[in-house]
Amino acid sequence: MHDFRFPAHLPFRVSDPSPPPSSSVPAGLPLAPGSEFDLIRRFVPNPVAAGDRADVRVGPGHDCAVVAGDGIALSSDMSVEGVHFRRDWLSARETGFRAAAAALSDLAAVAARPIGVLAALAVRREDADTYAVHLMAGVRAAVESVGGVLLGGDLTRAEQTVVDVTAVGECPRPVLRSGAMPGDEVWVTGELGGAAAYVGALLRDELPDPSGRERFAAPAPRTREALWLAERGVPRAMVDLSDGLAGDVAHVAAASGVAVVLEVEAVPVHGSVWAGAGSDEVARAVAMGGGEDYELCFCARPGSVAGLVAEFVQTFGVRLTRVGRVEAGAGVWRAEPGGGRRALDMGGFQHFGGQG
Amino acid sequence: MHDFRFPAHLPFRVSDPSPPPSSSVPAGLPLAPGSEFDLIRRFVPNPVAAGDRADVRVGPGHDCAVVAGDGIALSSDMSVEGVHFRRDWLSARETGFRAAAAALSDLAAVAARPIGVLAALAVRREDADTYAVHLMAGVRAAVESVGGVLLGGDLTRAEQTVVDVTAVGECPRPVLRSGAMPGDEVWVTGELGGAAAYVGALLRDELPDPSGRERFAAPAPRTREALWLAERGVPRAMVDLSDGLAGDVAHVAAASGVAVVLEVEAVPVHGSVWAGAGSDEVARAVAMGGGEDYELCFCARPGSVAGLVAEFVQTFGVRLTRVGRVEAGAGVWRAEPGGGRRALDMGGFQHFGGQG
Repeated sequence: MHDFRFPAHLPFRVSDPSPPPSSSVPAGLPLAPGSEFDLIRRFVPNPVAAGDRADVRVGPGHDCAVVAGDGIALSSDMSVEGVHFRRDWLSARETGFRAAAAALSDLAAVAARPIGVLAALAVRREDADTYAVHLMAGVRAAVESVGGVLLGGDLTRAEQTVVDVTAVGECPRPVLRSGAMPGDEVWVTGELGGAAAYVGALLRDELPDPSGRERFAAPAPRTREALWLAERGVPRAMVDLSDGLAGDVAHVAAASGVAVVLEVEAVPVHGSVWAGAGSDEVARAVAMGGGEDYELCFCARPGSVAGLVAEFVQTFGVRLTRVGRVEAGAGVWRAEPGGGRRALDMGGFQHFGGQG
Repeated sequence: MHDFRFPAHLPFRVSDPSPPPSSSVPAGLPLAPGSEFDLIRRFVPNPVAAGDRADVRVGPGHDCAVVAGDGIALSSDMSVEGVHFRRDWLSARETGFRAAAAALSDLAAVAARPIGVLAALAVRREDADTYAVHLMAGVRAAVESVGGVLLGGDLTRAEQTVVDVTAVGECPRPVLRSGAMPGDEVWVTGELGGAAAYVGALLRDELPDPSGRERFAAPAPRTREALWLAERGVPRAMVDLSDGLAGDVAHVAAASGVAVVLEVEAVPVHGSVWAGAGSDEVARAVAMGGGEDYELCFCARPGSVAGLVAEFVQTFGVRLTRVGRVEAGAGVWRAEPGGGRRALDMGGFQHFGGQG
C-alpha cells in the first residue's frame, strides 16, 4: 500500500479543502486531518502496529507497507461491478468479502500463509461514505478469517465500483501448476457449481436456491486446507477454481506439459445445483464449467491422498474427491468408462459457466 | 499475481470457448490455449523465469508470484480513466507507464529497491487487444526503467479503463513518514507543478507548454535518488509528492507529530509552469498544490544535506532544494520573512491542484 491516499482531484477535497493547523495528532491512522482521511481512518479502525506481528514491519499509514517472510507470495484480483457482482445481488460488505476471498484463494493455491491484503477501491462520488466503509469491512472480515490483516490500499473515484485486492502471504515452498506427472491423481476440495448456479438463476430471473448464496457471496478461501495438504507433501501441482474446473485444470496441463483426464461423473456437485439444473448432465456441466467456486484442485502421487480423506473431512468439514488422472499428452479430456479418453466438449459446459 | 487470468464471464471466452486438446505446450507463459490467454501472453513477451534473479522465486504464469528479500515493501495505486487520465490526453503506453510510475514512486518514498509490479487491468470489450497490449508495454517500460520486472496481474472488463498497479520492492530499512524531528530541514527533489500545469491547460482548452508533457505522461520514479539518499542516511522521514507538496507534507506532520513550515518562495517551480501562470504567486501555487509530480520530499538533520547537493545534481541531473523546516507543533504552515510562521492558505493552492 502507499497511504490510502485520496488523489487531489477527488471531490471530497473540494468540500474539505485543506489540512488546517491542528493542535492534536488525529487518532487511528496518522494521516493528515480532513474528511477524506477520516473516511480512510474508518476503513482501518484497528490498524496493525509495529510489533503486533513479526511478518508486518510497517502497517497502514505510510507510503508502503513492509512485510517479512521466507518467500512472499503475491496475487491481484480485480472485481468490477456489473461484471463480477451487481449491487442488487450483494451487499457492500459481501462485495468486499468476496473480492478479498478471490485474491486469498490464489494464496491458498500455492500453499501460502496469508499475511494481509492491499485493497484498492474505486467508488462513485455518492458511495464514498457508508457504502465504501461497509465494503472495506467485508475485505477486513475475509482477510482476518484466514489470519491476515489489512495492510493498506488506495481510494479513488470511478463510474462503477472496482475493487482490486492484492493478497500477500508467506510461502517458503510454493506449490506451482507445473509439477503434475503422468500417473498422478486429480483431486478437488469441496463441492462445485454452487456460485454459478446461484448467479445463473439470478440472471434468468428465477429464485435461486438459498443454500447457494453463501457460495457466491461469502466463499471461504481454502487456506487452512491448502496448508494442511502441503504440510503432508500431498499436492505436486495445485490451482484454485476461479474460472471453472475444466478451464482451470487446462492451466495445470499446459504448465506441467501433461494431459488431464477428468471423470465428469465423479465431480462433486454442490447441493444447490440440482434443483435448478433439471438433469444430472446439466448439473454436472454447471459444476465443471461454473466459475468462482474458489475450491482447490491438485494433482498428487497415486495412492497418496486416499488415506488422508477421512481426517481431512473431519478436520475441515469439507469434501475431498478424486475427479481424474494425469496422463502423458496435453490438454483436458473426458474419461471414458473403459479407461480411455475423449475430447472434452467444453461448449456444453461453457454455456452454464460464469455470469454471462 | 495469480495467473493473468480472464474470468469465465469475459466475452472472449464465447468466441474461443474451449482449450482444445493440443499436441504442444504453448510458447511464452505456460497458460492454457485460447485467444484470451494469447492476449495475456502478449502482455508478458519475455517473462522472468526461475533463476533469472534471486529476488523472484516464481514469476508470471502461476496462481501467485513469489518474491524474496529482507523486508518486502508493497504499495497499490489505482488509475481510472476520466479521473487520472483521458484517452485524448495520453496514449495507451503512456497510460500504463504513468500508472506504474505512480506506484513505483511509493517504493521510492520508503527507499525500497524495486523487484517488480503486479498490474490489474480492466478494459472495455473493444480495448482487449492492441490498446491493452500497449498499455501493458508501458507498465513494463516503467518497471524495467528502475530495475524491476512484471510479476503478474489480472485482466477483466469494465466500462472505463482502470489500472491498479501494486509495486513490490526490497526494503530492509524503510524510511517512514514518522521520523521528522523539530529542527529538521525539509527538502524536495526536482521541480514541482509541471504535471498540474499541463493538465490545467488541457482542462482550460489551452495549448499546454510541451515541456510539461513528460512530467504528466512519463514521470520518472525517483528510485535511484531515494536509494542514494538513504545509503547516506539522509532522510529521517520521506513522502512522495502525489497529491501536492502542501497536502503530502501534512501526512509527515501528522505521522511525526510535528509542524512543517514551508518557505513558499523557495519551492522549485518547473519551467513549464511560468508561462501559463501569469504571475509568480500563481506559479508557486501550482507548484505547492499541484499533484502527481512524483518527486520526493524528505526531512533531514540540519546541515546534513547541503554538502551533498552538488554530487546529487551531478549524479542524477535533478535538483535538490531546501523548502522549509520542521518545528514543534502540528500541521503545515507558511514561513514568514522574519522567521515566524502563519497559517498556510491552502484554498489558494488547492484551486490549481490536480485535475479538477
